[in-house]
Amino acid sequence: LARINPLSGFPEWLPGGRIVEQQVLDTLRRTFELHGYTPIATRAVEPLSQLLRKGETSKEVYLLRRLQADDSAAPTDSDLGLHFDLTVPLARYVLENAGKLHFPFKRYQIQPVWRGERPQDGRFREFIQADIDVVGSGQLPAHFEIELPLVIADAFAALAEFGVPPIRISVNNRKVAEGFYRGIGLDDVAGVLRAIDKLDKIGAAGVTAELVALGATAEQAAACLKLAALNGHQISNAEVIAQARAVAQSYGAATELFETGLAELAALAAAADQQAPGVVVVDLKIARGLDYYTGAVYETALVGHEDLGSICSGGRYDTLASDGKATYPGVGLSIGVSRLVARLLGAGLVTPSRTVPAAVLVAVNDEPSRAASDQVAAQLRNRGIPVEVSPSAAKFGKQIQYAERRGIPYVWFVGESDQVKDIRSGEQVAADSQTWVPPQEDWWPQIQSTGAQAGSVPSVAVQSGSAK
Amino acid sequence: LARINPLSGFPEWLPGGRIVEQQVLDTLRRTFELHGYTPIATRAVEPLSQLLRKGETSKEVYLLRRLQADDSAAPTDSDLGLHFDLTVPLARYVLENAGKLHFPFKRYQIQPVWRGERPQDGRFREFIQADIDVVGSGQLPAHFEIELPLVIADAFAALAEFGVPPIRISVNNRKVAEGFYRGIGLDDVAGVLRAIDKLDKIGAAGVTAELVALGATAEQAAACLKLAALNGHQISNAEVIAQARAVAQSYGAATELFETGLAELAALAAAADQQAPGVVVVDLKIARGLDYYTGAVYETALVGHEDLGSICSGGRYDTLASDGKATYPGVGLSIGVSRLVARLLGAGLVTPSRTVPAAVLVAVNDEPSRAASDQVAAQLRNRGIPVEVSPSAAKFGKQIQYAERRGIPYVWFVGESDQVKDIRSGEQVAADSQTWVPPQEDWWPQIQSTGAQAGSVPSVAVQSGSAK
Repeated sequence: LARINPLSGFPEWLPGGRIVEQQVLDTLRRTFELHGYTPIATRAVEPLSQLLRKGETSKEVYLLRRLQADDSAAPTDSDLGLHFDLTVPLARYVLENAGKLHFPFKRYQIQPVWRGERPQDGRFREFIQADIDVVGSGQLPAHFEIELPLVIADAFAALAEFGVPPIRISVNNRKVAEGFYRGIGLDDVAGVLRAIDKLDKIGAAGVTAELVALGATAEQAAACLKLAALNGHQISNAEVIAQARAVAQSYGAATELFETGLAELAALAAAADQQAPGVVVVDLKIARGLDYYTGAVYETALVGHEDLGSICSGGRYDTLASDGKATYPGVGLSIGVSRLVARLLGAGLVTPSRTVPAAVLVAVNDEPSRAASDQVAAQLRNRGIPVEVSPSAAKFGKQIQYAERRGIPYVWFVGESDQVKDIRSGEQVAADSQTWVPPQEDWWPQIQSTGAQAGSVPSVAVQSGSAK
Repeated sequence: LARINPLSGFPEWLPGGRIVEQQVLDTLRRTFELHGYTPIATRAVEPLSQLLRKGETSKEVYLLRRLQADDSAAPTDSDLGLHFDLTVPLARYVLENAGKLHFPFKRYQIQPVWRGERPQDGRFREFIQADIDVVGSGQLPAHFEIELPLVIADAFAALAEFGVPPIRISVNNRKVAEGFYRGIGLDDVAGVLRAIDKLDKIGAAGVTAELVALGATAEQAAACLKLAALNGHQISNAEVIAQARAVAQSYGAATELFETGLAELAALAAAADQQAPGVVVVDLKIARGLDYYTGAVYETALVGHEDLGSICSGGRYDTLASDGKATYPGVGLSIGVSRLVARLLGAGLVTPSRTVPAAVLVAVNDEPSRAASDQVAAQLRNRGIPVEVSPSAAKFGKQIQYAERRGIPYVWFVGESDQVKDIRSGEQVAADSQTWVPPQEDWWPQIQSTGAQAGSVPSVAVQSGSAK
């Protein structure tokens, strides 16, 4: 094993980085569970036929083959590939288990996904997603489209407590866009959405050219751009809603579909303004490329890190799955956890208080008395305190150095009467392993904001793949 | 999407089953962290050259290819495969990051692994492993060979609290076997170990035939079997150690290596007898097939479920990794979590108290007042209570049924003064959302022993792949 090369696009972290990632994952899980979302985990693979249902993403699939597979076995449509998101597996899981699930089915799922990007693209090829979805059987009330972004807002409010920057969730509603486009006479709704989706990239002139290429008149293109220009970044969400109605009326485009969507969007904005002020912003240019959204659509910026792109996206889809008898509408949001953690670590925004779980290192006087140290450790662990026993009976200075290097705050000395030393302050006091507890903030590793500027790379990050 | 077929060998669980699995995983993680093991996660893929280092398992590897890969690109040794265990990734991770890790490096890792078994074999092709390893740089004290099985014993003691059967860890030491075999003149140690490893399968006569085929005399074969017959299932571990020494001396096989190994084994047994009485059993037939073990070896039975095979195996390896400059010895144990959970669910040994996280369903009086129910829910969640809001403002009977189906114990009614009903007892009392808390045992889903007989399959299990 001569040389080890990190694989581009497959991020890994040093232990301190993993502690940060776990804290992020634990916080998301806790928030999801507080909101009543139930956990599922699906297998990593799906039949290729499932993965290709949506067409668009076909180039990103990793297929599997057994190293020793029979050469005679021709590829079949039962070929297996790694899932590239958690939505395709959810749809399959719902159909497979529909008779055993209770609807509306609220689930969360936190797992890696894989995309067969070209190595030179510098994109993640493996990354963790954390998804919440609500799936109905036959119907799904619109209030879930309000609930989901508020769960995400709650999760990031919890993450903010240890230094994760705040988020801004931009929301729109497909019915608003579709109702408006049809109202002005543009029926290639998917085509218009795809053009509008590029507004940030190619600008108004570029979008106009694309719309005209689709058969729109200059006036129709201008109308689409006028609607897309409305957002709540400078004005209130309520004003955006009012202006959208005015624009639609001025073009005679306030169709029933438009009004339905606008009412849903207004309800979402009103609830969000009340429950998570400043987090949710109505933005009528948000299109999301995927054809299957039919109601609310969401994307999310990490404030101050907008260059990351959306770190949490999703929307409402009336047909998540269908088995001929029943149709399952859904609404979901997916957090790109690896992208977020890569930035937290890469920019040094947060740091763990230590790189190991242990709060205490129990020193060993000499190897024959190791059992006495083990016994102290067991007593502390019985009361829930994470403890290591020194790996060697070296001089105490060496043993203290072992703790220092890992950030373990306390070293315990076993004797006729035991003593415990806070190696940061040097304070050493008598202690009883049956009763002593560390201060709450030292009990488990804590994640703290560093207030660092972007650019400094702390030692917890081993990044082999950019988040772009 | 006409039909959904579960994929054989890729187990998935219904939400209640996932809640059980999570409780198992959380318990393992907590135990590992209490013992100071630090978390890492590695990417799912490794270069094929890494995966094939051990030769033996080559048929079990899943290789990846991008669906849209250039046909012109010839396969190279940088081809990627899914890891089939967590040891190969650990070895690579240690070499890649050696300069940034602190040794001895104590890490745990809980992730899925994949093995490209033939579908018809009925084996798991994807399953979760939970590994602990200690890796030294240059050297690794033998006391870690004592520590590791005691951590596992601790983990299963914690699992036993919610109904997981107890375990029995069988231990041996490669030095005992090798020292003995060499002492009686058998130098093909790996060959003898492979034969002894089959003792339970092919019996003494079969092993004798294999040993003779390796060039052993009938007397040498009998000596190997005499040593292998010693175990602590009927007698104490200390007696096994004494008998082993007597057998070795009677054959003139008490070599220095044998005595070193026996002393290590005696120390392990003595510590285990004291700290986890009855869990660790010295068993001199334990060989473990893999060539690279050099000290303690372990395998673990779930008591009453010995047919499962070993659910936690491992050992000491003097060369986990080596980069030419430094050698990294290690000792590790790996729990087959999916195999364990499949049995817990499949045999109905444990059951979750509910299939969703929520302890409370807040009823909705009518859609216009949904915001009032949302506010109660937010207040309860602020104090850490998992809550759902009713998806519809149907008649209260319907809303209570929603809670009943999921096992949610409390329904909250919003009014001039709020009331909360325990739907199991029917008891309904006035309650304040700023102060009310559920009893501790209702707060989060609990996993309970059912005392079930093997054979009954509860509804939490969706098993598509046997644990064999």
